[in-house]
Amino acid sequence: MTRMTFNTATTLDGFLADEHDSLEWLFVQEHDDSGPFGFEEFMAGIGAIAMGATTYEWIVDHLTRTGEAWSYTQPAWVFTHRELTPIGDGIRFTSAPVKEVYDEMVAAAAGKDLWMVGGGGLAADFAAEGLLDEVVVSIAPVFLGAGRPLFTAPFDLRLKEFDRNGAFLCARYEVVGPR
Amino acid sequence: MTRMTFNTATTLDGFLADEHDSLEWLFVQEHDDSGPFGFEEFMAGIGAIAMGATTYEWIVDHLTRTGEAWSYTQPAWVFTHRELTPIGDGIRFTSAPVKEVYDEMVAAAAGKDLWMVGGGGLAADFAAEGLLDEVVVSIAPVFLGAGRPLFTAPFDLRLKEFDRNGAFLCARYEVVGPR
Repeated sequence: MTRMTFNTATTLDGFLADEHDSLEWLFVQEHDDSGPFGFEEFMAGIGAIAMGATTYEWIVDHLTRTGEAWSYTQPAWVFTHRELTPIGDGIRFTSAPVKEVYDEMVAAAAGKDLWMVGGGGLAADFAAEGLLDEVVVSIAPVFLGAGRPLFTAPFDLRLKEFDRNGAFLCARYEVVGPR
Repeated sequence: MTRMTFNTATTLDGFLADEHDSLEWLFVQEHDDSGPFGFEEFMAGIGAIAMGATTYEWIVDHLTRTGEAWSYTQPAWVFTHRELTPIGDGIRFTSAPVKEVYDEMVAAAAGKDLWMVGGGGLAADFAAEGLLDEVVVSIAPVFLGAGRPLFTAPFDLRLKEFDRNGAFLCARYEVVGPR
């Protein structure tokens, strides 16, 4: 059965990016993509992707600066109320209710799982509809003190497994429900 | 040599308490005081304690409601600009600079270590003076979405060790410096 996972890097104090949407704190950390909780293995099981407009714009900005191409082969839904331009194949913009988009994503994933990329507000929207199954965090050894929140609603989780990958403490949680 | 450790429980999204200073989310979690990262072993090495006024008032309120007594045998410094009443022996109120109080604490600890109880603002004040050596977190499987921040300044850490204790993911970090 298709499951949705919010898989993200975060600081120890629960921020996905600093106040200027910078991930400068993230890219300096040692990390092995093929190690424990590695991105390669995770992405092999993913059939569709969801992200918010700010996350998408961050990726577009990053690709534009580095000259890299959009790397996801899976169809991606970007939740936005603004006019945005697709930077790669398979990108759909939507302002439809999350439940409706979820059903489309499950159909497109054809048995594979769904990746909730972020941000924390969109992840909480899916969780509020009972559609988020698990949270996987790669916790960077960093305090930012302020920034974009990891999650925006009160929810209970259950710790399933954890390990270290380079500088990161990684953990998988089952979503229990709203508290 | 005496070291100062900020040892605290936190939610996965980096809050020490909810917006109403409640720790209701904390006390429902399964935990073994004598297990990995347990409180008993930690407290055996502590010679003096520092906390902010809000943390102190939370403890006073908790003790008043439960009828329990102040349990710390170590001298405790409470940083406050307000008039507060001591609820136990060995409690000193101060509004002196953290470096000055740190020197008093080290002398009082007589070779043992210092516990920075919280909150995140006071811990960051000590870190800014280069006086905070390590951070130990017991991460509860909870998102609050809002509340009292774990830390209030940008700082780099280094992951030293980690383990599970009941519902908590526990980790010890060395403080590297401001970022």
